[in-house]
Amino acid sequence: MKTQYYTATTINGYLTDEDDSLDWLFQFGDIGDIEGVQDNYSQFIDQVGALAMGSTTYEWIIEHENLVENPEQWQYEVPAWVFSSRKLPVVEGADIRFVQGDVAPVHADMVKAADGKNVWLVGGGDLVGQFHDHGLLDEIILSVAPVTLTSGAPLLPRAITTPPLKLATVQKYGDVFAVLTYEVQQLSEG
Amino acid sequence: MKTQYYTATTINGYLTDEDDSLDWLFQFGDIGDIEGVQDNYSQFIDQVGALAMGSTTYEWIIEHENLVENPEQWQYEVPAWVFSSRKLPVVEGADIRFVQGDVAPVHADMVKAADGKNVWLVGGGDLVGQFHDHGLLDEIILSVAPVTLTSGAPLLPRAITTPPLKLATVQKYGDVFAVLTYEVQQLSEG
Repeated sequence: MKTQYYTATTINGYLTDEDDSLDWLFQFGDIGDIEGVQDNYSQFIDQVGALAMGSTTYEWIIEHENLVENPEQWQYEVPAWVFSSRKLPVVEGADIRFVQGDVAPVHADMVKAADGKNVWLVGGGDLVGQFHDHGLLDEIILSVAPVTLTSGAPLLPRAITTPPLKLATVQKYGDVFAVLTYEVQQLSEG
Repeated sequence: MKTQYYTATTINGYLTDEDDSLDWLFQFGDIGDIEGVQDNYSQFIDQVGALAMGSTTYEWIIEHENLVENPEQWQYEVPAWVFSSRKLPVVEGADIRFVQGDVAPVHADMVKAADGKNVWLVGGGDLVGQFHDHGLLDEIILSVAPVTLTSGAPLLPRAITTPPLKLATVQKYGDVFAVLTYEVQQLSEG
């Protein structure tokens, strides 16, 4: 069981542009059409037993997929925890658990629900940072898209230098994505 | 002949930390000790016929290598252009040409001096951005170190999205560096 941050990012570490848009990512069309990318995601998601996201990420998905009107478009079969101090729209029939505050007890619940499978931190960066602050992040898997931005939501607003991360694998998908997998080294090992 | 931006960067696109330090990079010791890294640099520098850098980068090298007292430590054999509006220390015996203003005419001089070899843009990010603004940047080669920072000098403070860059190659050096090579697509090709 691992707790993983799996996300797409620009080369220089932005998750969205300054308008919270992912147009820079969607220009690559149906990403599943790029050879191997769909397999990469399928292999990843098959091993996920629970996921968590922040309110901005959740609201983005709700809006982008128009989930209030089309709740059947919610694509996750595993329980999802949404961190928010605000009241957010509900997706009918989806197993979504709204929480707030310290991530550690929620992580314990997620691990239990995942039942041996992995925990996926969808984003945003600060929420993932909170898991990292508690030593609860094991792996970072980045699909680096071939674009740069000058501002936007940061990939991971934390200084992780000592110990550094460990580069586990690099993969190339077409002339678009470099997928970099990093293991988080805990301080005790460093 | 290509104009290349070859640099080390954090995962999230910082060249230095907020104190202009490269300690996050130097923790990996003599980078040449990581299998293959020295070869990567050697192959790159062998094809370089001229280089350019901004004043901050130049001053960092001068100070780090104590070049005023030890000018023989200047490690570049090809002519170097330094962009600055300030008066900077000189390295005795080194072929350094201080310039300011528009990068386009300087680039023409560099190409001429390089005589068929490549032009290396050492950094920083904004200077490289100025070459890109003029359509003069052909390739970006990033040695991505396995660390994140929260602020510092940006890798490339430009939004390059349409057309996106083209991922040419990915390489892995030990559990430290992912080297990503991107080709810049000019608008006319996009």
